[in-house]
Parts: sequence; C-alpha cells; structure tokens
Amino acid sequence: MTRRGLLIILSSPSGAGKSTLAKRLRAWDPEIRFSVSATTRAARPGEVDGQDYHFVDEDAFKRMVHDRQMLEHAHVFGNFYGSPLGPVEAAIEAGQDVLFDIDWQGAQQIQKSPLASSVLSVFLLPPSIIELRRRLESRGQDSAEVIAKRMNRSWDEISHWDGYNYVLVNDDLDATEEKLKTIVTAERLRASQQPGLVDHVRHLQSEFEGHE
Amino acid sequence: MTRRGLLIILSSPSGAGKSTLAKRLRAWDPEIRFSVSATTRAARPGEVDGQDYHFVDEDAFKRMVHDRQMLEHAHVFGNFYGSPLGPVEAAIEAGQDVLFDIDWQGAQQIQKSPLASSVLSVFLLPPSIIELRRRLESRGQDSAEVIAKRMNRSWDEISHWDGYNYVLVNDDLDATEEKLKTIVTAERLRASQQPGLVDHVRHLQSEFEGHE
Repeated sequence: MTRRGLLIILSSPSGAGKSTLAKRLRAWDPEIRFSVSATTRAARPGEVDGQDYHFVDEDAFKRMVHDRQMLEHAHVFGNFYGSPLGPVEAAIEAGQDVLFDIDWQGAQQIQKSPLASSVLSVFLLPPSIIELRRRLESRGQDSAEVIAKRMNRSWDEISHWDGYNYVLVNDDLDATEEKLKTIVTAERLRASQQPGLVDHVRHLQSEFEGHE
Repeated sequence: MTRRGLLIILSSPSGAGKSTLAKRLRAWDPEIRFSVSATTRAARPGEVDGQDYHFVDEDAFKRMVHDRQMLEHAHVFGNFYGSPLGPVEAAIEAGQDVLFDIDWQGAQQIQKSPLASSVLSVFLLPPSIIELRRRLESRGQDSAEVIAKRMNRSWDEISHWDGYNYVLVNDDLDATEEKLKTIVTAERLRASQQPGLVDHVRHLQSEFEGHE
C-alpha cells in the first residue's frame, strides 16, 4: 500500500546532536531526503543551486511567501531563508519522507501549514547544560564570547521545547538513534499517512455486498 | 524518567486477530494490563469479581455513569457494561499501559473522555472478507445464520475504521505484531506521555541561569 511521506522536523539547541542524528537517520534510510531551502543570499564558492540551496532573488522569494508557497521562512542578517512548499508536497505525495533541520520558529510555521497533518516533530534536549557547553567548546577554537552567544541562543531554543510531538533527552547517541528510528517507523503507519486504506475498505465493502 | 501509561484501544471485527494480538502484546510486555469492565449481569460459574469483571448492581452502575466515573459504557441484551475510570487513571498515573479490547462505540467514548490525551487507538482490518468469513467459520460448529449475523456485525465494525490513530491490515500475524510493538514503543515516547520532561527542562534552566 502506498503511503504518504512524513515531514520530519528535527529541532534542538546547537550541540545537542541534531546534525549527527539527522545523518544517521538518512544512513538508516537513504530514501529520507533533506528539504532544500530557498535563500536570497548569494551562493558561496562550491555551493550548487538546487542542491545546497535554491538561490532566488528577493522579488521571487517575496512572491512565493505571498502566494503561500513557503512552508516557513525567516529573515536573518538581511537575507531571506525559507522552505518551498512545492518540492516537499511532491515528495510527500510520492511517499518520500522529508527531513527538516530547523529551529522552533520554522517548526511552528510548518505546524500551521497545509502539510501539518503529515508533520512528525522531534525536539532533542541535552542531558545537561554543562554537557551542552562542553560539546560547543570541543568544536574548535571559538572565543568565550561566541560560546556565550551560542549558549544564549541554545537556551532560547530549549525554552521552546514544548509543542513538539516527541521530545528526547539525548544522553546516549545510539539510544536516541534507536528511538528516532522507532518513532519514524511507527509514524509511517499512522492512518493519516495511509491513503490506500480507503481503497482497501472500499474493496472489503464490495466483497461484503457481493456475498450477502 | 517516569512516563504516563498509555490507554491502548484495540478494535477490529470479530475474526481479524484482535484477541491473538492482545495476548501477544501482553506476552511481549506483561506490564500491560487489561482493563477490567464493570457489568450488571450476574457472575457466571468460575468468574472472579475484580478479575473477570467488576460485578455491580444497576444503581451502582448508573451512579458511576452519572458521576462520569465510566470511560465508556453500553447496554447489551438488558445488561450494562462499562470501563470504570478510576483504576485506569491510577494505572496510567503509575506509568502502566492499559489495554482495551472494545468496539468502535466504546473507542469513540474513550476518545472523548478526560483521558483522551493518553489514548493510542489501533484498528485491525482483515485482508479480505473471504478470509474473515473463513476465520469465523473455522472457529467451530456455528450455523450459517450465526455466521451471517457475525458477518453483519463485522461489517458494522469495519465501517467505523476511520477515526483510529493507526489502522493495520492484518494479513500476517507476525508482521502485525511487530508493527503493534513498534507503535506502542514509539507512542510511549510522546512528549505528552513524559511528564518528567518539565522537571528536566526546569533543571536545565537552573543550570543555565547559574552559569550566566
């Protein structure tokens, strides 16, 4: 039976394991694809249009927002970023899951979009703030100021943990990965993701009426 | 982290594998308990009060309905049957899942009850009506008339397949069992089933504020 794809939202503060888990989820099932954002910022060397981003000009971007062709969008440091509805809708109709690595503001917008019924939203919490800070610090040579800024942004993200379908405390990457896979496997079975059920029941009905 | 228990509703037409799957679910996790119904009918030889049923008189039953102490109830052949709220609420608070083997009318009532947010509802469909009839016929020496009545009741049940969280076509018992276990495992992780998350976030907050 063909299923509808899921719109999988993965949010977390920076350093809570979101990117690693997104990668592992795709390694587990390469059919899951990342949503490609549209942006008005210029392409950087090596970035491929349609793969890293859809590079569009501001007029085109604003037209898409106006025409409700953006699932979510934000204005960051003078540039627009957003998730075009079209490709996600097409993927979902074709039974492909689309993974969104976005913050709570994007998640809230998508949960009010026309595709809301296919959303599976997961928020990752760190086991502790000390651990989160350790992970941010171990990344490289960032200054204390940069780390402090990231910690503030992380707290802003954490404070919006509520409103997600699932909230996992990522104290063990392997265990969290297993939970994520179980959740995705189960959510794919939701009645709302199985449009073929209508046909199956119709078939049962004609069988039943044929027999009586 | 302590979780809230799930109120697992399993519905299906007679012969679609509901009892077998309920048993397998409890064999997988004996902590899952069956909801014990209250009834006004007399105990049959061998039936134990509080185990097979809670045997109550009609006044007591009606008072419970009036006091909203019944999650769902029905009147069948002159007797009342219902699921008392109290024990289910206590089990759920203690982190125990409670399994309900009920029809679509009971399921609808529970989904409007105060415990609705903990409901996981699963409907089992037969692969075909021929297969369903075959399973009903293979049960014993029932007359054609009894089988026909059961088939009509089965169709009534099937026609209410919509409105369940999950609808599984039971064409392979082992595969359906796996799906059920995956669904239960995932649903236990829902944010709404994890009251301890609030404490965890509070802890993160005090840690964050202590550091700034």
